[in-house]
Amino acid sequence: MKIDRHSIEQAHERIKPYIHRTPVFTSKSINEATGCQVYLKCENFQKVGAFKARGAMNAALSLDEEDLAKGLATHSSGNHAQALARAAKILGTKSFIVMPRTAPEIKKRGVRGYGGEIFECEPNLASREATLAEVIKKTGATEIHPFNNYDVIEGQATAAKELFADVRELDVIMVPVGGGGMLSGTALAAKYFSPNTKVIAGEPAGSDDAYRSLKSGKIEEAQSQSIADGLLTRLGDKTFPIIHEQVSEVITVTDEEILAAMRLVWERVKIVIETSSAVPLAALIKEKERFKDQRVGIIFSGGNVDLEKVLKLMTQ
Amino acid sequence: MKIDRHSIEQAHERIKPYIHRTPVFTSKSINEATGCQVYLKCENFQKVGAFKARGAMNAALSLDEEDLAKGLATHSSGNHAQALARAAKILGTKSFIVMPRTAPEIKKRGVRGYGGEIFECEPNLASREATLAEVIKKTGATEIHPFNNYDVIEGQATAAKELFADVRELDVIMVPVGGGGMLSGTALAAKYFSPNTKVIAGEPAGSDDAYRSLKSGKIEEAQSQSIADGLLTRLGDKTFPIIHEQVSEVITVTDEEILAAMRLVWERVKIVIETSSAVPLAALIKEKERFKDQRVGIIFSGGNVDLEKVLKLMTQ
Repeated sequence: MKIDRHSIEQAHERIKPYIHRTPVFTSKSINEATGCQVYLKCENFQKVGAFKARGAMNAALSLDEEDLAKGLATHSSGNHAQALARAAKILGTKSFIVMPRTAPEIKKRGVRGYGGEIFECEPNLASREATLAEVIKKTGATEIHPFNNYDVIEGQATAAKELFADVRELDVIMVPVGGGGMLSGTALAAKYFSPNTKVIAGEPAGSDDAYRSLKSGKIEEAQSQSIADGLLTRLGDKTFPIIHEQVSEVITVTDEEILAAMRLVWERVKIVIETSSAVPLAALIKEKERFKDQRVGIIFSGGNVDLEKVLKLMTQ
Repeated sequence: MKIDRHSIEQAHERIKPYIHRTPVFTSKSINEATGCQVYLKCENFQKVGAFKARGAMNAALSLDEEDLAKGLATHSSGNHAQALARAAKILGTKSFIVMPRTAPEIKKRGVRGYGGEIFECEPNLASREATLAEVIKKTGATEIHPFNNYDVIEGQATAAKELFADVRELDVIMVPVGGGGMLSGTALAAKYFSPNTKVIAGEPAGSDDAYRSLKSGKIEEAQSQSIADGLLTRLGDKTFPIIHEQVSEVITVTDEEILAAMRLVWERVKIVIETSSAVPLAALIKEKERFKDQRVGIIFSGGNVDLEKVLKLMTQ
């Protein structure tokens, strides 16, 4: 599988009818807090409330008819689950979503709202993988991995592509990193559409596997301790090589820094972003001396929050 | 003072360099919850986080040089205070803001951030008015009332004017009502720019003075019991006649209905609106059978919230 300028353009055309071209916000308060010119790409306003709508849709649309008819499957308790269920519904096929039985009811309701069928498993990776294998065996559905899938990566690349089209001459683009779908997609979009833009990731310090992987040159295990619960995964064997080649730097931030950045956005930009979205902004604020007066794009990855939980965290 | 099509157009040109043309959002979730086509005019993204930036700026720009040089004064603990301080700063003059000593520190900081001078008073109307009179006597500043001022009303009218320009053939436009600045401005904008659009206000049931005033034909006292703390004022002798002539209806909603609507917006539209902003949406949801399939514009008046307070309300 080769992802290049042309294939990203094709992916973009493919998914355009099904996704929002999300707006780019600017904010005097954010510029003051960072000392930069910041451009906020608001994927919190994307369908299903997160950029995941892009990759899932592109992967679904890239299947041949026969495979598509058998349905789409994944294990995910996050935004990818809803994104995949939505893609299946739009394309008139089924989705089979493996979720830990401990997943919040609201996430399950979201998936069911798109007609997704949920298979509960134990809350550990072994059970998730075993359950998914069983579901696929039974249904013949195609697994669409949340990030370790070239069609998914290509779909995620379209967010940065839009930002580069809307805002010229960015010095830096910053995104969060978990499994690396958004980050590798952004890195490829920069390579082909804005080669002078540095790609930098923000990562929770409590799950700094991408930071360590970039140092060691191989995929490191994640420790998974952070409020940024969308970013607790290690990189995949498809995302890591792209990241290793294209990404300048990973900046890690504490949960406190993440919460402060998130609060700043809610209070001053007046938009709802999830913890993971606040990570690259927290990284920029932390290292702002280095980026003084630069033009910085940030992708706010999503806006799906449990309000009580997040308000409690922010106001502690 | 006559407000007409031409004077609103002039006001709009006058303030344009200093305000945002705020975006109009649509949301599948909101359309589903209401059974209407809803267009959300997002004044929460306005300068100082509220539509008040419009009226204050128009009033300030309408003063002659000599008066302007002596400064602007008001009593307000809300968004108008910041809006007026900002207008003064932009125009290179002073602002004198009378605030109850019990006003939240964050509001005072906001005013001081724009160079406003704060005069503390006791938290009652008599003390506010006496303190303001004293300040004006001492400084020669011009009072800019938060709503009972034709220049302010004319400025507020520009929000609805923009919405009518962006979205054609609205059946209804809904806004919150407190003192009536936004409501009377919206009513005049509808009269001159979209005469087939019905103007309807949402009001907290615990402070339903506008509802009662429209019934009785005279200004009724407010009781002032609601979480929508921007809407606890009675109408003014300048706003009431316009409202009486132009506004079809006031729909009252309980605090529970306001909170549910606010929560819907935060969770599904992913934007932060204040309690007052949620009132017209709550009204639409409450009476949705009557508006089925109509095209409804709603002005979200502002997005300045105390996150701690909102958490308490949502978890009660």
